[in-house]
Amino acid sequence: MTEGVPQTEPTPGGGRPRNADATRAAILRAARERFAADGYDRATIRAIAADARIDPSMVMRYYGSKEGLFAAAAEFDLRLPDLSGTPADRLGETLVSFFFTRWEEDTTLPALLRTASTNPSGAERVRDIFATQLGTAVARVVADPTEAPHRAGLVASQLLGVALTRYVLRLPPMVDLSPPALAAWLAPTIQRYLRDPTPR
Amino acid sequence: MTEGVPQTEPTPGGGRPRNADATRAAILRAARERFAADGYDRATIRAIAADARIDPSMVMRYYGSKEGLFAAAAEFDLRLPDLSGTPADRLGETLVSFFFTRWEEDTTLPALLRTASTNPSGAERVRDIFATQLGTAVARVVADPTEAPHRAGLVASQLLGVALTRYVLRLPPMVDLSPPALAAWLAPTIQRYLRDPTPR
Repeated sequence: MTEGVPQTEPTPGGGRPRNADATRAAILRAARERFAADGYDRATIRAIAADARIDPSMVMRYYGSKEGLFAAAAEFDLRLPDLSGTPADRLGETLVSFFFTRWEEDTTLPALLRTASTNPSGAERVRDIFATQLGTAVARVVADPTEAPHRAGLVASQLLGVALTRYVLRLPPMVDLSPPALAAWLAPTIQRYLRDPTPR
Repeated sequence: MTEGVPQTEPTPGGGRPRNADATRAAILRAARERFAADGYDRATIRAIAADARIDPSMVMRYYGSKEGLFAAAAEFDLRLPDLSGTPADRLGETLVSFFFTRWEEDTTLPALLRTASTNPSGAERVRDIFATQLGTAVARVVADPTEAPHRAGLVASQLLGVALTRYVLRLPPMVDLSPPALAAWLAPTIQRYLRDPTPR
């Protein structure tokens, strides 16, 4: 790669040549929109390249694979609900119910976990996403803001653990439980991590 | 590959030629012992090949990479404690404390999660390991044995979620919490999944 050295290259639609930085930016913008709109499995390199008005081979040249592109583009909006109006004793239930609404039909979270498990830049993105989005949402609803990071970490450990066992590893009993049954088990856990006093 | 067609090949120590099935079995046996004894990171293809009295190139030929060998060999003993003598109200605490004793210094569990996240045969091994080992241990201590599989699944969702966020993704607040502080948060969760009545 020749980071910082401007390069020009043709676009498939015959538009103006663009330099490498502009090309990368266009690819990442298109990838984020496609992955967010279509989910990981349905988003294709071809569609992303078409959105960016670039040849698919250029996408492969810069990012190597769909997984590599995903790791580079992963600045996902978890679309967390605003919890500030939720009664304090219903925070766990609300967050768990959101989790199933958001992720039950979307393959992006499993893809993010797969990528992050094996790719350092994927792991870095997951750390960013959880610190800025879940960390911020949790900070608004905990009693003591200095405890927000580790409470958010505990919430992530349980919710990502469900994503891992249900959608990635597909442990049969975790696949078999219905979302309402699973939510009923998980809500008190998340509620405790958000609001109970620190155990001693 | 020529499964089922016996092949002979020389051994580095000049021993008798062995057929391919015997060679694979020797490699897997050596790999299981090394991975269990040394952990994933410290176990080397070279050492495993030496233990199996086979050339390292043969290991690569059969399994492609250390990760591939690991996925094939992953029949790990979680070395779960016998919980049958544990008071019913201390099961969560006992299992969580075991978890940290076993995994805090061992890189095998993160390696297993990484491999299982991206490799179907790795995921299959994890399903086997958890069904037979955690499932069996949980079945001995739940009030209603028919509930054992999903209670074991919930326990796995929280403990593997901790392994994922602390050892693989390395979310800073999960890395920063000490094992005793984390155990104090987790024990009531595991206790509830094992022993509390099913929520409605």
